[in-house]
Amino acid sequence: MRADSDKTVDAEVWPEGSLEVLSQHEADQLRNVGQGGLYTLLRRCLLAVLNSGGNSDDAREVLGRHKDFAVRFEQQDRGLKVILTGAPASAFVDGEMIRGIREQLFAVLRDVVYTSNEIQASGRFDLQSSDNITNAVFHILRNARVFHLPATADLVVCWGGHAISREEYDYTKKVGYELGLRRLNVCTGCGPGAMKGPMKGATIGHAKQRIGNGRYIGITEPGIIAAESPNPIVNSLIIMPDMEKRLEAFVRVGHGIIVFPGGVGTAEEILYLLGILMHPDNEDMPMPLILTGPADRADYFKQIDEFIGATLGPTAQGRYRIIVDDPEEVARQMLLGLKSVREYRRQQGDAFYFNWRLAIDHDFQKPFRATHDSMRGLQITRDLPTHKLAANLRRAFSGLVSGNVREDTMAAIEQQGPFEISGSAEIMSLLDGLLAGFVADGRMKLESDSYKPCYVVRV
Amino acid sequence: MRADSDKTVDAEVWPEGSLEVLSQHEADQLRNVGQGGLYTLLRRCLLAVLNSGGNSDDAREVLGRHKDFAVRFEQQDRGLKVILTGAPASAFVDGEMIRGIREQLFAVLRDVVYTSNEIQASGRFDLQSSDNITNAVFHILRNARVFHLPATADLVVCWGGHAISREEYDYTKKVGYELGLRRLNVCTGCGPGAMKGPMKGATIGHAKQRIGNGRYIGITEPGIIAAESPNPIVNSLIIMPDMEKRLEAFVRVGHGIIVFPGGVGTAEEILYLLGILMHPDNEDMPMPLILTGPADRADYFKQIDEFIGATLGPTAQGRYRIIVDDPEEVARQMLLGLKSVREYRRQQGDAFYFNWRLAIDHDFQKPFRATHDSMRGLQITRDLPTHKLAANLRRAFSGLVSGNVREDTMAAIEQQGPFEISGSAEIMSLLDGLLAGFVADGRMKLESDSYKPCYVVRV
Amino acid sequence: MRADSDKTVDAEVWPEGSLEVLSQHEADQLRNVGQGGLYTLLRRCLLAVLNSGGNSDDAREVLGRHKDFAVRFEQQDRGLKVILTGAPASAFVDGEMIRGIREQLFAVLRDVVYTSNEIQASGRFDLQSSDNITNAVFHILRNARVFHLPATADLVVCWGGHAISREEYDYTKKVGYELGLRRLNVCTGCGPGAMKGPMKGATIGHAKQRIGNGRYIGITEPGIIAAESPNPIVNSLIIMPDMEKRLEAFVRVGHGIIVFPGGVGTAEEILYLLGILMHPDNEDMPMPLILTGPADRADYFKQIDEFIGATLGPTAQGRYRIIVDDPEEVARQMLLGLKSVREYRRQQGDAFYFNWRLAIDHDFQKPFRATHDSMRGLQITRDLPTHKLAANLRRAFSGLVSGNVREDTMAAIEQQGPFEISGSAEIMSLLDGLLAGFVADGRMKLESDSYKPCYVVRV
Amino acid sequence: MRADSDKTVDAEVWPEGSLEVLSQHEADQLRNVGQGGLYTLLRRCLLAVLNSGGNSDDAREVLGRHKDFAVRFEQQDRGLKVILTGAPASAFVDGEMIRGIREQLFAVLRDVVYTSNEIQASGRFDLQSSDNITNAVFHILRNARVFHLPATADLVVCWGGHAISREEYDYTKKVGYELGLRRLNVCTGCGPGAMKGPMKGATIGHAKQRIGNGRYIGITEPGIIAAESPNPIVNSLIIMPDMEKRLEAFVRVGHGIIVFPGGVGTAEEILYLLGILMHPDNEDMPMPLILTGPADRADYFKQIDEFIGATLGPTAQGRYRIIVDDPEEVARQMLLGLKSVREYRRQQGDAFYFNWRLAIDHDFQKPFRATHDSMRGLQITRDLPTHKLAANLRRAFSGLVSGNVREDTMAAIEQQGPFEISGSAEIMSLLDGLLAGFVADGRMKLESDSYKPCYVVRV
Repeated sequence: MRADSDKTVDAEVWPEGSLEVLSQHEADQLRNVGQGGLYTLLRRCLLAVLNSGGNSDDAREVLGRHKDFAVRFEQQDRGLKVILTGAPASAFVDGEMIRGIREQLFAVLRDVVYTSNEIQASGRFDLQSSDNITNAVFHILRNARVFHLPATADLVVCWGGHAISREEYDYTKKVGYELGLRRLNVCTGCGPGAMKGPMKGATIGHAKQRIGNGRYIGITEPGIIAAESPNPIVNSLIIMPDMEKRLEAFVRVGHGIIVFPGGVGTAEEILYLLGILMHPDNEDMPMPLILTGPADRADYFKQIDEFIGATLGPTAQGRYRIIVDDPEEVARQMLLGLKSVREYRRQQGDAFYFNWRLAIDHDFQKPFRATHDSMRGLQITRDLPTHKLAANLRRAFSGLVSGNVREDTMAAIEQQGPFEISGSAEIMSLLDGLLAGFVADGRMKLESDSYKPCYVVRV
Repeated sequence: MRADSDKTVDAEVWPEGSLEVLSQHEADQLRNVGQGGLYTLLRRCLLAVLNSGGNSDDAREVLGRHKDFAVRFEQQDRGLKVILTGAPASAFVDGEMIRGIREQLFAVLRDVVYTSNEIQASGRFDLQSSDNITNAVFHILRNARVFHLPATADLVVCWGGHAISREEYDYTKKVGYELGLRRLNVCTGCGPGAMKGPMKGATIGHAKQRIGNGRYIGITEPGIIAAESPNPIVNSLIIMPDMEKRLEAFVRVGHGIIVFPGGVGTAEEILYLLGILMHPDNEDMPMPLILTGPADRADYFKQIDEFIGATLGPTAQGRYRIIVDDPEEVARQMLLGLKSVREYRRQQGDAFYFNWRLAIDHDFQKPFRATHDSMRGLQITRDLPTHKLAANLRRAFSGLVSGNVREDTMAAIEQQGPFEISGSAEIMSLLDGLLAGFVADGRMKLESDSYKPCYVVRV
Repeated sequence: MRADSDKTVDAEVWPEGSLEVLSQHEADQLRNVGQGGLYTLLRRCLLAVLNSGGNSDDAREVLGRHKDFAVRFEQQDRGLKVILTGAPASAFVDGEMIRGIREQLFAVLRDVVYTSNEIQASGRFDLQSSDNITNAVFHILRNARVFHLPATADLVVCWGGHAISREEYDYTKKVGYELGLRRLNVCTGCGPGAMKGPMKGATIGHAKQRIGNGRYIGITEPGIIAAESPNPIVNSLIIMPDMEKRLEAFVRVGHGIIVFPGGVGTAEEILYLLGILMHPDNEDMPMPLILTGPADRADYFKQIDEFIGATLGPTAQGRYRIIVDDPEEVARQMLLGLKSVREYRRQQGDAFYFNWRLAIDHDFQKPFRATHDSMRGLQITRDLPTHKLAANLRRAFSGLVSGNVREDTMAAIEQQGPFEISGSAEIMSLLDGLLAGFVADGRMKLESDSYKPCYVVRV
Repeated sequence: MRADSDKTVDAEVWPEGSLEVLSQHEADQLRNVGQGGLYTLLRRCLLAVLNSGGNSDDAREVLGRHKDFAVRFEQQDRGLKVILTGAPASAFVDGEMIRGIREQLFAVLRDVVYTSNEIQASGRFDLQSSDNITNAVFHILRNARVFHLPATADLVVCWGGHAISREEYDYTKKVGYELGLRRLNVCTGCGPGAMKGPMKGATIGHAKQRIGNGRYIGITEPGIIAAESPNPIVNSLIIMPDMEKRLEAFVRVGHGIIVFPGGVGTAEEILYLLGILMHPDNEDMPMPLILTGPADRADYFKQIDEFIGATLGPTAQGRYRIIVDDPEEVARQMLLGLKSVREYRRQQGDAFYFNWRLAIDHDFQKPFRATHDSMRGLQITRDLPTHKLAANLRRAFSGLVSGNVREDTMAAIEQQGPFEISGSAEIMSLLDGLLAGFVADGRMKLESDSYKPCYVVRV
């Protein structure tokens, strides 16, 4: 709250959790991170966590404002010590780091180091193979202690924009509250807006139900974390190595999904999920999916629904339900949906904590790197198989997210102009309309007055 | 939220906590409560708890709306069963009672039965003696398991109005949040407004600091509970037998006190506390007391301060500090104050969980029953010893609270006209101004448009 | 172990548990215990607990050896402080009191004070009425926090001699071990021998099953505690006010009963239980009862069985089962029996934690004070109704226990000669044989070489 | 107890702990263990754990008796299922596996799989380098969750024979009891005798001190586990890959060491520890070491002391203290020693949970495989540097352990005759005397009547 965003603090912090006991090898490795690629990665993720109170989604602005922020590691008798200089003061209360932020700080170290050592360097995972990618996702999540046993089907993933109106934000809180009252847990993508509201609401719902171990899971990735700082309620923070593994993590640990109004990121998530659910192997698998928002957002969902109808068709439309202005009904329907999930998993002998059975085509797993070339090259045409079309649309939206919030992509666009997206006329027209709506509603960026589109849509 | 206030539910509930194991004697007693005085008392308290989502402070309205509400008790193998008919639906989620409300329901039974048996009927306490009253307060609180060991000095009592503006409410949340971030616990008088805001804020602060056992203590009494339903965040609800014992409970278990803007109830609390603190035996005892509110409430506190200056004098004024529009500073100053409390208690060898040493004159302990006669008879004159004046002013405000929210007092006023308060001209003039301000600010009742003063001030 | 029994220690100890928070009234009361009757009672019970390592069953010897032992109370900021002088050193490890003993010390204070205040002085219980006695037993046990919820039927009461052979002791350990492996809890009368063995065995069984909250309940009373010090494994110690309430506590909290070889105390317990079970209202109530011992004790149980057959008849004999030399079978049969108990209580809607339904005739509840007159006056004749005969035989054995271990009764016998027991010739002959066997086996006293019978049996 | 050692049981068990959540890769690996080397290793370790009640130290006998024992793995919804056929019935109570044994069963899987994957196959550890071996030991222990935080210095390693007299066994229990009373935890090598007694004693000591989380750590290795089954009190079982890593684990996690009478295994342990402590870098490091036994074992320790004096010299003798027949004094001295350990670690900023600073020469880390050649080749001569001599003597004793209890080594000796040990005349003479004493005292094997030495000592 109100922390002067220029104030900084130097501090030493000790771990809480799994990093307390490092071997000498591991401590050496962290100490020697030096100024290389891993250091840059760590630094930007750590800064994002420490900046948690901030309200900018402009990664360059955040990184620029904290140029002097630095981090060092020392091995001490009782474990690893992290030495911060130039850290944002808002992470501290009277000089002591807020415990939730301290936990997140060590979650970043845990995930970045584990992914680097065990997933990327160890050679145990062939990251070109679909099966291996899924196992890698599993190993990262397990190392982050996401799987609690005995597990049940109670984790609701909430998607939606980080840049939303006060009214929309209050609505996400109400939905979170109703979920919390029904003992459901919440998983989001970290960050403000629709990622924070449901968690705050669920916190109050859990308090009223005397649930002391409610779970507020945040799944993010290094490319967007700086723009979407985890809020400190998140008590289980996971840094996946890239957007595609982050999306896979969402759909394999979540048992149901609620989508609030949002912009291109939300559209990416919807396309990703529907694209996967249309895989023939997933046909019978229950996965409750609810699109919801306050009363006057009925039009928004109508536009989304039309876009999906026109691109992926009525089967895709049959996978979700739109509920307007009724938080209780949303929670009740989700509870019903989760009951089917439980029954299905029991019947199939599937684990509750990880949806191994969900088939994900390699097209949805391959990391997509948005460049002017890759964006221009995306095929978005009527004649593609639906699933290919969904995959490419997902990539298109993903590229727009990067163009909006990733500092490297923003720099490329400043130099070379906006991304070009082209394809079938009808789809392009709908897409253009959708994006124009996002711009008009201020869903692209937090400071939307000055938003300059990072794209042009061509037929 | 939004529960239709006419809907009702029939339900059977089992205890959680100390009532699970009743002896046959005790169960018989509850079963035989019949329709007598204890039943009426229990019924109104239980209804208040169940009505927790409601937003009326009109006890008659609440009781009238739920005329058919009834409660019965059955002894079962695993303890006592409570059978409710016509209970407000808002206490339930999908047919199951919210756990926080269930706990409060049994807290009511616990306290009403204990007070009736052990305090009033047993003959162990001579309730005319100051010393015995204090021991009775202690026994009720201990039976309610308020004392946790090892104890420290971290309980902040928050006083303030139930009928406050949105802006004031948000401010109380921010202060609660800063208290929670500093690991402090919160005690209020139950009910909405300034009694709810600090608890909601502290809940979020505790969540960020990963404090799973935060304490949200609510202390109420049968006369006002129907008008000020406990909010379900309260995880330790205590029903004291009357207003005076409730006030004594506040000042003996709380370690510091924050006062937000409020009306006559808040004024009663301030007068009570300052009256006690001016007892010569309490002269050196630290008791941090902060009056605070948002920016544009500076005038409000100025008026209060003047009234205190004019009645109790500068010594009383020296006991508190006014901080405007700075939640962090409020929390920091409270923390500092609590440090002195800890040091003082350690020096004196005093308990942390109950302030035995605080001297409370019998004048502040004797129950005051507001009637037209007793109100008219109050001496409020310049020539009284300060402490007597404080005691009588406290009674005057207490009577106005009853006139505003207690259904029996409201009925008497409807019949016999407003209470008359008279005394020294200067004091009466200040009092009249103060009360007029409360009316103007809508602090008397939640539905303030139609507020008809329950008093006249005469010189 | 091996603590030099003459060494003593002066120490100050603080409570652990319910006594930490006393009111000023209560603390005053303890401080003022002075040298009156309550002090004598407290002192002897506290000494017994502190003497826990000792191996004497001669109360006079124990009390004589610690003539200088004294206890005082001081109220401190953090609760009550107990100041001991001349305490047995064996209760301490390197100057610090063993925590188990410390807990027992405060259990004594808790029960003696509660019984004195709430049961005897308060006037709430008419101790001449059967119903009221049962409620009093319940209140003492509840105050001692014996009732844990959710409760199940898993508490096995183990009875048997304190003066038993090494072989018998090892057997009781084995049975306790098998009970512990089956997750059963153990309740005994405190003291050495068959009261200690099952608890030690169960501790190991629980450790292997990773049961961290195993219950080792000891129920004693002031008259015998000095002769039968609770062993420190007992983690729930209860001091009932007299032998009859102690026996009632056993049969109302225990779900099944195992009897090991013992002397007159064990005979008293068997007669008490069978006498009660023969009440017509208890006819259908399951209460597993197993008599067991090592291989060469078959004769012992034959003699007991014959005595019961000849006095109470075959119905009584049908209530127990004798198992020789098979600890596993004992545990398995007990488990089966407990299953019936659970089913029966569920059917009847009875509580698991207290057997309210068990009918106990007032004859078994009235305290029996053994004097030369009362012993001489006992009617033990064939023509009595069986239940009266059982009650009187119980009293006869109870008197012999007092004559063996209570210092006041021992003194009376030294002065006036042995107790006289008379009755029908056949019963007296059997009784004489039974008692002679106890003497021959050394079951009367720990130092049995010098045992001088405290009785004569006359036809 | 008394389980008929021929009875077997078929059962399915589910994990408790870290194996509950395996990835598909890992589950596939276990399922595919087939009949290869890992299967043989797993099977013998699992059988040892299940045979925990048995009292044979003859691995061949144990393995022979359970020829039909087999194990399979199935991946189920809620994790891995282990299917056992022909398992020893003694591991079960009424058909259900004792929980302590179940935990140990999964500890075996955990360690064998982790060591195979992460230590041996992964290529992360160069097991020829001293530094890497230590890190590998650390990683295995950490994966087994041996390190609890916050840690203190309270872990006493107890060494001594598995084949000891009843009197010696009772003595180890008494020492364990005194350690437990002083809140110390116990670590042994698993198995009966001096490895079991201290744990049983500590269990009772902990119970009296109400310590519910006492630690009973057993560290073993596949070569000896079949001969020395872990007893079920062990609540933290670790399977190190070989004897040398097991010894390193002992001295890096233990804070002090008590040695009871034993045979060649105990001698190996003493030589190992003294050899390491004589490293110049360890000169100032406190490591309390106490040799102790009952009264009439004074001669035994005198002989050991002479042997050490004659081989390693007075500096080595200065590292330990011999205490005869005084369990309390042993515990008190250990407590004092641990105080120095704590101070030293604090001064140095060392971790409490793992003694990184202890220098261990590579000679003590290299696995020694006892064959006729390797045993014959051992240089045991006066002119060696003391530390080399210690290392070779350690190997000689290690070889004799293998010759006594490992089935492969026993087979080699049956074929090729006893191992030959040769060296300086004086040392050989002392060694011969020492070994003859072990044989005479029955310390070589549990069934010592028929013991046929597996060695000849030559000058």
